[in-house]
Amino acid sequence: MSAVPYNVRLSDGADSLIILDQRRLPLEEAYLELHTREELFDAIRSLAVRGAPAIGIAAGYGYYLCAREDADKPDFFSRMDDAERYLASARPTAVNLFRALARMRACLKRNALSERNELIAKLRLEAEAIQREDVGANVKISEAGLTLMQPGMGVLTHCNAGPLATSLYGTALGPILLAQERGYAPKVFADETRPLMQGARLTAYELNRAGVDVTLICDNMAGQVMREGRVQAVFIGCDRAAMNGDCANKIGSASLAVLAKHYSVPFYIFMPLTTADPDTPSGDGIRIEERASEEVTELFFRSRIAPDGIKVYNPAFDVVDHSLITAIVTEEGVLRPPFDVSLRDALERSRSGAGDRSRKE
Amino acid sequence: MSAVPYNVRLSDGADSLIILDQRRLPLEEAYLELHTREELFDAIRSLAVRGAPAIGIAAGYGYYLCAREDADKPDFFSRMDDAERYLASARPTAVNLFRALARMRACLKRNALSERNELIAKLRLEAEAIQREDVGANVKISEAGLTLMQPGMGVLTHCNAGPLATSLYGTALGPILLAQERGYAPKVFADETRPLMQGARLTAYELNRAGVDVTLICDNMAGQVMREGRVQAVFIGCDRAAMNGDCANKIGSASLAVLAKHYSVPFYIFMPLTTADPDTPSGDGIRIEERASEEVTELFFRSRIAPDGIKVYNPAFDVVDHSLITAIVTEEGVLRPPFDVSLRDALERSRSGAGDRSRKE
Repeated sequence: MSAVPYNVRLSDGADSLIILDQRRLPLEEAYLELHTREELFDAIRSLAVRGAPAIGIAAGYGYYLCAREDADKPDFFSRMDDAERYLASARPTAVNLFRALARMRACLKRNALSERNELIAKLRLEAEAIQREDVGANVKISEAGLTLMQPGMGVLTHCNAGPLATSLYGTALGPILLAQERGYAPKVFADETRPLMQGARLTAYELNRAGVDVTLICDNMAGQVMREGRVQAVFIGCDRAAMNGDCANKIGSASLAVLAKHYSVPFYIFMPLTTADPDTPSGDGIRIEERASEEVTELFFRSRIAPDGIKVYNPAFDVVDHSLITAIVTEEGVLRPPFDVSLRDALERSRSGAGDRSRKE
Repeated sequence: MSAVPYNVRLSDGADSLIILDQRRLPLEEAYLELHTREELFDAIRSLAVRGAPAIGIAAGYGYYLCAREDADKPDFFSRMDDAERYLASARPTAVNLFRALARMRACLKRNALSERNELIAKLRLEAEAIQREDVGANVKISEAGLTLMQPGMGVLTHCNAGPLATSLYGTALGPILLAQERGYAPKVFADETRPLMQGARLTAYELNRAGVDVTLICDNMAGQVMREGRVQAVFIGCDRAAMNGDCANKIGSASLAVLAKHYSVPFYIFMPLTTADPDTPSGDGIRIEERASEEVTELFFRSRIAPDGIKVYNPAFDVVDHSLITAIVTEEGVLRPPFDVSLRDALERSRSGAGDRSRKE
């Protein structure tokens, strides 16, 4: 799999960030080269790069690039504080953004007394570590998720939680891609995911390319697919998990969970533990991003569909109540309810593991 | 309200059907003039005219126009049987289509021995009666629905069940328009209704024009709107009701009912009794129309969004289980569970009322 070019990576000169522009998929595979903090902000805000783990990775590299650009400035450290605040304001819901930036800041502080070029080199290594660890988490999540699958199984997914949203296999799509590699022949139903069509554009694209049997549906058809017995599980990603197991994810996810419960279909969340937010006790504390009305009225910015002047409500996420979740699949395995216990334990295992690794370094 | 031009009406010469082309709303208010059975079929099939009651009205006039066209043919009666079968095959789910055609056929049989021009005149009167009775039902449904509303109330609706789908006030939108006229200032959330966007294009257009406070949302946001307490009821139309109260309606309706139950929001169906099918005991007997995949992949035929060759599943309707319905609002009042009793009783009241009326004529 290492031959696959990451959709977020440093340029060869390490002075810019190359990203696959997800806004233009599946019609075009175009790459953007980002140099300035404004370009980085815009790429995150406008969803050129999206998916909670991928946003975290881009933010890590972005922080490094800001440091590189300002290395010689007399007010370097205060400029870095500004850069962190600015990049963090690009999107409010995905916790990976804030956590990656906090991690980069911690690296900056640890190395504040180093020579400036040595500090910059450390920041680059830290950003690369964020991406490398996400790859490792993806592989483990995919293997853990595979234990939930049977050959020929039907799976419903929403939005995009594949390689494009992460670094390698993806989270929710990880076990599906692995199952396909291992001959399970999964049958996937992909919600198109209005308003921005990440399911139609990205999930359908990724799974189609990997040879997976994927069928596109509109979001409002998911209940019918469950009712007809076409799927035996729902697999989705997560943008932020509260410590009680409430999971914020793409708008429509909570409704899918209600439908899955009604139709007795198991409902699984897939995420790296970086998506769990120790500072958020429950979903009530998660700020839901509201996005521009044109996303709804203009049909992916191409053709107007609604009357002029119509009011629009466009929340980008909702919160899946923990009581509706069958299990949360992480790099520390398949977590079962009660999530307030299993999630805390997994985070502790993960931290002590990371502690072991950093001591060995 | 009689100054409002019907969106389905005979031309002044009574030799063609004039319909407002709903495919082009809200961007254009264009009318089509239909002469032949092929043009009538295409208009119904392609949704130039849509909404269960409006389809019934168009089919009634269509049958009359076919009779007019073939009046002098030696095989007139067998041609009329062909015309009925052909028009009935335009769409499989809405029962109003079949019932209007059956009613026209009954009129044809009753008057088979009349002079041909007298027979044609009777058919025209019958088609006009179908429309006039729908107007009457709309008014009664709207008044009955108003008893379920309070000033300032939030209502969620799906697809379009307004004047465009019927003849005057509409079914689900009827009480909303009446409430607006009477100063209740309802606040409506309109699901856009993928794939063909009847909510964004038609409901938002009709309510906006009537000065109603309407907010457009994507279908997958409805659960969030309920969860946040923004709506106190769901009002939707119906394409066919089975005798146990199972109601087929636009895809997504059944999921809304599951969500409404989960969030304790009352869920109301609005329909004329012509939509109840005495020959269908339960929803299991309703054939769900599957439509072309391009409706999903091409974004209302304007711009492709999904990868080439992607499989699509595009059911146009689903069935709301009667156990999830709070009440069915008809011209015979607000029917409560058990619907197998209340629906049968309402149909009997309606038939004996119609009997009274026809005896008086």
